[in-house]
Amino acid sequence: MKNITIGIDIGGTNTALGIVDTQGNCLEKRSIRTNSSQGAESYAEGIASTIREMTGKVAYNLKGIGIGAPNGNYLRGTIEHAPNLDFEDIVPLTDLIGKYFDVPVLLTNDANAAAIGEYVYGGARGMRDFIMITLGTGVGGGVFVNGEMLYGHDGFAAELGHTTAIPGGRQCNCGKLGCLETYCSANGLRRTVFELLASSNKPSLLRNFSFKDITSKEVFYKASEGDEIALMAFDRTAEILGKQMADFMAFSSPEAFFIFGGLAKAGDLLFNPLEKYFNNNLLTVYKNKAAIRKSELEEGNAAIVGASALVMNALQSEWGVIK
Amino acid sequence: MKNITIGIDIGGTNTALGIVDTQGNCLEKRSIRTNSSQGAESYAEGIASTIREMTGKVAYNLKGIGIGAPNGNYLRGTIEHAPNLDFEDIVPLTDLIGKYFDVPVLLTNDANAAAIGEYVYGGARGMRDFIMITLGTGVGGGVFVNGEMLYGHDGFAAELGHTTAIPGGRQCNCGKLGCLETYCSANGLRRTVFELLASSNKPSLLRNFSFKDITSKEVFYKASEGDEIALMAFDRTAEILGKQMADFMAFSSPEAFFIFGGLAKAGDLLFNPLEKYFNNNLLTVYKNKAAIRKSELEEGNAAIVGASALVMNALQSEWGVIK
Repeated sequence: MKNITIGIDIGGTNTALGIVDTQGNCLEKRSIRTNSSQGAESYAEGIASTIREMTGKVAYNLKGIGIGAPNGNYLRGTIEHAPNLDFEDIVPLTDLIGKYFDVPVLLTNDANAAAIGEYVYGGARGMRDFIMITLGTGVGGGVFVNGEMLYGHDGFAAELGHTTAIPGGRQCNCGKLGCLETYCSANGLRRTVFELLASSNKPSLLRNFSFKDITSKEVFYKASEGDEIALMAFDRTAEILGKQMADFMAFSSPEAFFIFGGLAKAGDLLFNPLEKYFNNNLLTVYKNKAAIRKSELEEGNAAIVGASALVMNALQSEWGVIK
Repeated sequence: MKNITIGIDIGGTNTALGIVDTQGNCLEKRSIRTNSSQGAESYAEGIASTIREMTGKVAYNLKGIGIGAPNGNYLRGTIEHAPNLDFEDIVPLTDLIGKYFDVPVLLTNDANAAAIGEYVYGGARGMRDFIMITLGTGVGGGVFVNGEMLYGHDGFAAELGHTTAIPGGRQCNCGKLGCLETYCSANGLRRTVFELLASSNKPSLLRNFSFKDITSKEVFYKASEGDEIALMAFDRTAEILGKQMADFMAFSSPEAFFIFGGLAKAGDLLFNPLEKYFNNNLLTVYKNKAAIRKSELEEGNAAIVGASALVMNALQSEWGVIK
């Protein structure tokens, strides 16, 4: 019997489920509609029957189920006020799914799940203090301190994307101004490009794109071809992220930062200036201490593997290494 | 035999030593010159003989020695590169003092010691996640997460005074620009007064003071008498601190903030606007969750009591409550 866990990644449209082995390999994936308007109980039932189908045919030994969800609360096992899901305000999802299985069911938010994935299967193995920053549509954070995930008193710690990067700055979807997310997410990069197109006279192929059409991938291609505006946009993104990471360093003093998500694919275009601005903004006592690294999680499966790592980590803390 | 600990508060000029009982009462205090130019070994010897004198005459049962020091490193028991002390770069002070006694000797920085004092003897008793902010000559931080002090990978976490409040802002002694400390310390308040005296035409008795002569106490008196510039200075201080505390909330989501040090004595003048600006800057998920409270530590003995709490906390984690 092969020991496995199930990782579940809940998105607004689709829910991805994966069978993950004890090494963090995703053996099989399935996707179902999230269909949150049908109610949480029917949704949980759909998840349970999909898991049964996936695990029924092979001699698997199911050890646990981990879930990564927007606005997921680890301490309570709930999804709370998720803006892109149609559920009631507070969904006790671990209870609803737990009814169907005799194994631990745990849930956390997607950025925390990514951090735990890095800790259990990725570059942060063996580290006690590190910070994972997810640069996607938004900016997410996951913080490890003293070898444990930082959840805070209410389960909602590490909303690093909503720390203030520029006081009184850009309007954020959260209602605040100047959040890190408004500068360093994929959408933030696009906003920066438009700011630069307005403030500068430099020629740029990016002047041919509408705001809606421009993607961070496109900005990356243009930067790779030497487009000055695109290069400046990456530099500005790195400047703001680097400064903010220096503040995070002054808070929890991690031994490493891991950068995950779409913008991390820009490689040196992002990491070289990031390293520079991070160091420029560090208090002397922290100089040359923390590494900035690209996440080692495989992009396509990271959310599933991270979710499975959540339950794997809990099991291993209790029982030791599972093989 | 009465169980006691010794708390030691190391300052640039003087070192204060106190006998502290298990309830956090300081029974007796002594002060010696810090005399760091004589070398660390002779300094440690002086501390040891003072402790012997203090504890020799009464039937005390000495349980441990706790030290609060500038640039103190808990993990290594060292004072490292302290700018206001004349010692060599790295002083292994717990080893040097430990030679003379058969009890645990622990050391941390002053702001952390204050936080542990609040945790063991003050308003944070029973809390697992809280943040202590010390508003003194500088701004210090101490962070508890999951019921433990946050030290980070190197022992230097929680330098909250050196997070960036205003990017590109005021020059800080640390070499950076815009640190929280340059706005919200006693000296920061003075700088704010001068900024307001320059930008505004309002009459103010504070126009009679030189930069050197003005103190935060004086600003407090003038504000209490309704001086508009002084009131604006407190409001501005609270605005910047409140915004920064909202960022700290987004990092570790504590259940409470404790404010300690000189400026905390301003009471409602600081706390009322602080509450307002903190709430205005909070992400929705954190609204109405964390209290902002004045430290319950007694100002005069707080550093000694905090240092003693460091060792008391360690002893109690190991042995349970000591009476």
